[in-house]
Amino acid sequence: MRIAVLGSGPVGRAIAGRLAGLGHQVVVGTRNPEVTASRSDVAAWLIETPGVFFATFAEAAGHAELVINAAGGAVSIEVLDQVGKANLTEKVLLDISNPLEPDSGMPPRLFVKDEDSLAEQIQRRFPGARVVKSLNTLNNRLMIDPGTLGETTSVFVSGNEDAAKRTVTMLLEQLGHRDVIDLGDLSTARGAEMYVAFWVRVALALGTSDFNIKIVRSSVPTLAPSRGADQT
Amino acid sequence: MRIAVLGSGPVGRAIAGRLAGLGHQVVVGTRNPEVTASRSDVAAWLIETPGVFFATFAEAAGHAELVINAAGGAVSIEVLDQVGKANLTEKVLLDISNPLEPDSGMPPRLFVKDEDSLAEQIQRRFPGARVVKSLNTLNNRLMIDPGTLGETTSVFVSGNEDAAKRTVTMLLEQLGHRDVIDLGDLSTARGAEMYVAFWVRVALALGTSDFNIKIVRSSVPTLAPSRGADQT
Repeated sequence: MRIAVLGSGPVGRAIAGRLAGLGHQVVVGTRNPEVTASRSDVAAWLIETPGVFFATFAEAAGHAELVINAAGGAVSIEVLDQVGKANLTEKVLLDISNPLEPDSGMPPRLFVKDEDSLAEQIQRRFPGARVVKSLNTLNNRLMIDPGTLGETTSVFVSGNEDAAKRTVTMLLEQLGHRDVIDLGDLSTARGAEMYVAFWVRVALALGTSDFNIKIVRSSVPTLAPSRGADQT
Repeated sequence: MRIAVLGSGPVGRAIAGRLAGLGHQVVVGTRNPEVTASRSDVAAWLIETPGVFFATFAEAAGHAELVINAAGGAVSIEVLDQVGKANLTEKVLLDISNPLEPDSGMPPRLFVKDEDSLAEQIQRRFPGARVVKSLNTLNNRLMIDPGTLGETTSVFVSGNEDAAKRTVTMLLEQLGHRDVIDLGDLSTARGAEMYVAFWVRVALALGTSDFNIKIVRSSVPTLAPSRGADQT
């Protein structure tokens, strides 16, 4: 597949390198390709990552079939504006960002939650894109290689279109994800994004972000209705 | 231990019955004990649950060493006001409620989140209580019998006092919980409470609330720093 990864930070580079290794044609979109490529850490990464190229956000997305938003949550809309509506129309837009408020400390606050989500904000601004939220629930190492956990763990997809979710699920399976749970339409991304407030606190408690959750279902048939969260 | 369970709904009854079965002295606090005990569903439950008694919120907590808030999130402060400050002072107050806004639809909205939590609101109102948040991340069946999942899953404690968290952890282990993760001080309850927005959506997607998460840690040593949620 021809894939554009928006964002040349650690997450963007991790996913771009892995997808290129899987045989996809990957272009990384960045604000200023020449400046980015000349940074010493990026130059070193480019040398050891054959087949990945840098381009502007618009150029990268323009040539892609699937676009991955790996930009920071706070700048995602601005980055996608630079891509432009025309370059996103009818394309699967895999949004892996989190709505973390910059400079809000640790744990960070979320700048959108509960009654809306960043994924839905992106979908409203780019109604022609086929937005799918996924992979925002784990760190960049586990996103691209969940097998290092030594056990099957779960990832989630949210989106309004089944075909787009199937495309993303196929990509997730190529990355090694074995339990992909379809949460439903894009509004379910509110749950996946709010999960990050929990994820950060678990990471701080464990002293590592190298963990993921496994959704363990009951092996015993349900006998009676059960009350969940809303106790009275 | 002498335990008061505040709330005679399905969650309160489930946890009260289980704790009585473990040999604890359990009193269920309710608004009007006589009216509650005369309800047909409650009367049937009382018959099959020896050793559990009803009392007013204040009476129940007054005789207890440990108090469990199993009231609905939206009425928790009001219920605890009925208990009164004196009956909570120096007691471990295990808060298992969730801040779900009544009549806000499905999935429900949270009435406090991100910069505050219901657990912290309770702690501020009752500074003499030793508040510990736990068990709000799973349904009433799995709270009291996680073994039915056939696999060890995780639960969490948040609180400002280590001794109080140890008491709660001991109780959780008696209920069958084998992986109790201490998230840190009570502000970490923000994460555990926001997790519920995710939990509801997973439950809707799976068609059952009979699931829990297992935190799967990496079995491979960490080689390099990894960027988590805040991609740039």
